[in-house]
Amino acid sequence: MGKVLEEPLLHDASLTSHVFEEGDVAAKITKVKKGSLSDSVSPSPSPLLVVSPIIPGKYPVLLFFHGFILKPSWYKSLLQHISSHRYIVVAPQFSSLISQSKEVKKAAKVTEWLSNGLNSVLPEKVEPDLFKIAVSGHSRGGKTAFSLALGYGNLSSSTPTTPLKFQALLGIDPVAGSSPSSQSAPKILQYIPRSFDQSVPVAVIGAGLSNQRAYYIFPPFAPNGVNHSEFFNECKPPCYYFLAKDYGHTDILDDKIAAIASLISKSGKGSKDLMRKAVGGIVVAFLEAKLGGQVDFLNDIVKAPSLAPITLDPVIPMSNN
Amino acid sequence: MGKVLEEPLLHDASLTSHVFEEGDVAAKITKVKKGSLSDSVSPSPSPLLVVSPIIPGKYPVLLFFHGFILKPSWYKSLLQHISSHRYIVVAPQFSSLISQSKEVKKAAKVTEWLSNGLNSVLPEKVEPDLFKIAVSGHSRGGKTAFSLALGYGNLSSSTPTTPLKFQALLGIDPVAGSSPSSQSAPKILQYIPRSFDQSVPVAVIGAGLSNQRAYYIFPPFAPNGVNHSEFFNECKPPCYYFLAKDYGHTDILDDKIAAIASLISKSGKGSKDLMRKAVGGIVVAFLEAKLGGQVDFLNDIVKAPSLAPITLDPVIPMSNN
Repeated sequence: MGKVLEEPLLHDASLTSHVFEEGDVAAKITKVKKGSLSDSVSPSPSPLLVVSPIIPGKYPVLLFFHGFILKPSWYKSLLQHISSHRYIVVAPQFSSLISQSKEVKKAAKVTEWLSNGLNSVLPEKVEPDLFKIAVSGHSRGGKTAFSLALGYGNLSSSTPTTPLKFQALLGIDPVAGSSPSSQSAPKILQYIPRSFDQSVPVAVIGAGLSNQRAYYIFPPFAPNGVNHSEFFNECKPPCYYFLAKDYGHTDILDDKIAAIASLISKSGKGSKDLMRKAVGGIVVAFLEAKLGGQVDFLNDIVKAPSLAPITLDPVIPMSNN
Repeated sequence: MGKVLEEPLLHDASLTSHVFEEGDVAAKITKVKKGSLSDSVSPSPSPLLVVSPIIPGKYPVLLFFHGFILKPSWYKSLLQHISSHRYIVVAPQFSSLISQSKEVKKAAKVTEWLSNGLNSVLPEKVEPDLFKIAVSGHSRGGKTAFSLALGYGNLSSSTPTTPLKFQALLGIDPVAGSSPSSQSAPKILQYIPRSFDQSVPVAVIGAGLSNQRAYYIFPPFAPNGVNHSEFFNECKPPCYYFLAKDYGHTDILDDKIAAIASLISKSGKGSKDLMRKAVGGIVVAFLEAKLGGQVDFLNDIVKAPSLAPITLDPVIPMSNN
């Protein structure tokens, strides 16, 4: 298997280990209803969960799209972990009744809304830094994140006054359908290496058990050919791949929900808390590198995957050269 | 799409263009029957087509495994092209009735046989250089080549007196089954990037139309999720990917057979001769680089894919770093 040879680190690894723990800022969770704001500001196009640092400051923004039939509030632990490292996370709730093409358009509308609506739902003196925006998602939401970054959400009818540009893209166990021959629209996978016409750096985090059946009965949630592996294959460098070898597709959800999900979704035997910390840490390290200019954490994890609290194997960095 | 930026070449490109034309040595085709040799030498474990330069010399050897229900003799133009550049090509005929696991074992036996049988079927004063051996295959034969290189053909019962080591591996539109969930044994695809535990350099040549239906009816011969793209994804560097964008799965066969095959296999509109020349040229350039130490031809094609007589897009080099 693709084990990365662990190289000596150039600096204190404990600095990197801290991305796998809660950060130093308390995070506040705000539920925003659809269109619930007054006329003076732009109403939200979707219900949202906004997770934000509570101390005054200007913070980068991470959009996070949930998986099929899941809710943003079921990812609270993970999103708080990320936010506590000084990020504002905006997680819209999409209806499971709409097509994925419509979900991508909704996601684009939420992105537009960041410019003129987000400020009004944040704690006092907390501001979004709209020049530092990343987009991410889990499962079907991972594909929505890729689709949006690839331009499938273009809103022809209205041009945003301040077009926002993503600086980073993360797919957490992304899924594009039930098999290569039955991809849901938009069909973003081409089955050609590096076919994504993306310019933004990408991290793909896969779950090693997500292509397996639960109890030999339930079909895998991230089947071979439409999962993390093919998403990574179609990314242009710079891109990164991390496989949480011993965990399943829904093991990043909050504990109670993860326990219920594990009845139908193959789940890892290890602590789900460690899985969430590992994924949260990778997200933070990647955002620090691509939005904050601090590359050491990401480089350290690539060089020494054992810094993570779970087995990451393989870890693959692919650079532009 | 993943177009490679064409960089200026450091030397005369006409030297590289010549790999896409017949080489300077006439090639002789010999049919070898199974077990047809006298007792003094080792009988061939399978019927074989041996294509060899006719002028005296010591030449590297390329094993070539045909596709499902196809015959080595249907690839004559391609194999002669390669051989005319001073290679001995050994192409066994496998029965379409045996399982692929058995085919891999047969392939291993043919590899063993090279040491003590090949010499006896070559033209006078023509010798195989058994320190320079590459393995290749088309379609199901491409998977057989990968399986053999990955050690699936290990013959536990008999240890060869001179264990041969492959220096290069080539998959020409390799196919691993009909879908990710119905891979034939040995199941070599893991759906994890770089999961192949191969140390040998690899070239994967895909056909851009091989994942399409012919006349909207016949299923694709190299379906998404089990074709060239996933084979490349699972290779460790150093590896190379070339997509013959406008050609189909059986367009490398000799003209008459390719015409018949095109009734059920999606075929390109362009000249099949150009497709064979392109594939032959890539094979020769790769063998020159990995067996002969002459890297310019391969590097030139990577830098300037337009040197090839057909559209190669994308061309992806992946090096060790």
